[in-house]
Amino acid sequence: MADPLKDLYATILARKGGDPEKSHTARLFTRGTAKIAQKVGEEAVETVIEAMRGDRGKLASESADLLYHLLVLWADAGLTPDDIYAVLAARQGVSGIDEKKNRKG
Amino acid sequence: MADPLKDLYATILARKGGDPEKSHTARLFTRGTAKIAQKVGEEAVETVIEAMRGDRGKLASESADLLYHLLVLWADAGLTPDDIYAVLAARQGVSGIDEKKNRKG
Amino acid sequence: MADPLKDLYATILARKGGDPEKSHTARLFTRGTAKIAQKVGEEAVETVIEAMRGDRGKLASESADLLYHLLVLWADAGLTPDDIYAVLAARQGVSGIDEKKNRKG
Amino acid sequence: MADPLKDLYATILARKGGDPEKSHTARLFTRGTAKIAQKVGEEAVETVIEAMRGDRGKLASESADLLYHLLVLWADAGLTPDDIYAVLAARQGVSGIDEKKNRKG
Repeated sequence: MADPLKDLYATILARKGGDPEKSHTARLFTRGTAKIAQKVGEEAVETVIEAMRGDRGKLASESADLLYHLLVLWADAGLTPDDIYAVLAARQGVSGIDEKKNRKG
Repeated sequence: MADPLKDLYATILARKGGDPEKSHTARLFTRGTAKIAQKVGEEAVETVIEAMRGDRGKLASESADLLYHLLVLWADAGLTPDDIYAVLAARQGVSGIDEKKNRKG
Repeated sequence: MADPLKDLYATILARKGGDPEKSHTARLFTRGTAKIAQKVGEEAVETVIEAMRGDRGKLASESADLLYHLLVLWADAGLTPDDIYAVLAARQGVSGIDEKKNRKG
Repeated sequence: MADPLKDLYATILARKGGDPEKSHTARLFTRGTAKIAQKVGEEAVETVIEAMRGDRGKLASESADLLYHLLVLWADAGLTPDDIYAVLAARQGVSGIDEKKNRKG
């Protein structure tokens, strides 16, 4: 598939409502928003730490964990990757110093 | 472009080495790894909070901020989106309860 | 005062309800729980980063920021330092490997 | 003891160098700075989430976990509670809107 994040998101959605005994993803959904958000926060902490250690392999691995849990958080909230891409697209095309104001606006 | 993250990553790379007075992205690179990692951590905290508030629009907005800074962190470390996609691909195809062990392995 | 955290907590409480134009602490309370929690998360990220950098002076400075915002979060929730000390005391006296189970129990 | 944080810090120091098989605290020190910093970050995420949920009991419990790991991080770095109290004391006495600038200065 052209967009691996959408591929992974489709897999995540397919596991939603599945057997929590058989799928880690299904179990995450049953544990609820707070637990999923906690995992996003924890994987971000690990990503920060591997960036500071300068371990590129572990940074890739923790980044993948962070993306996976972020996608679960989106699915839990009813958001799709396209929703987030739309936000990013609205910010692009803007160049120079104004981009920050736009990003935060 | 088929993959918006790669599109954004290309834009970020193009700004690397640009004028920090004109580009927020260029300025981030000059501030160094610790500052970029800090931004990733801070945007993750905001993402967690908006998920807990149940504000879907702000969750999309903070998720976009998180993705943007994560891409800058990858570029700073010499990682590409394909590097992270490779990690994710190696974990997929695994189904059921074993997926977690694989993700963390 | 014998306990600097209680001293700081008393100062924070005294500023609660004060003029947000004159007191940073008063302004934090008016911005609400989500903003205070966000500051706690952000200062924790900075504490993590300074620990990884090995900068002891900045680690002390960021730790102080983290404690200050944590106290504001407690005051916002109606918790006192004694409430948290009671939790810590209930966990102490426990020694050896069981302490972890107890801490998390 | 008049200051429960100093009491806990003394306990933590006493366990440093102890048997990692018998003491969770001793084991934390052997795992190193990155692992201790990670725990601080993770407990901060949980503290943020319980604050957002409005669960006062769990907020107290997670705050205690955060304080404990923060003290371990200080001990790991050679900092004492008095070092952090000195930073806080230098910021107090300052009132009004200037306190923020001072805190961050």
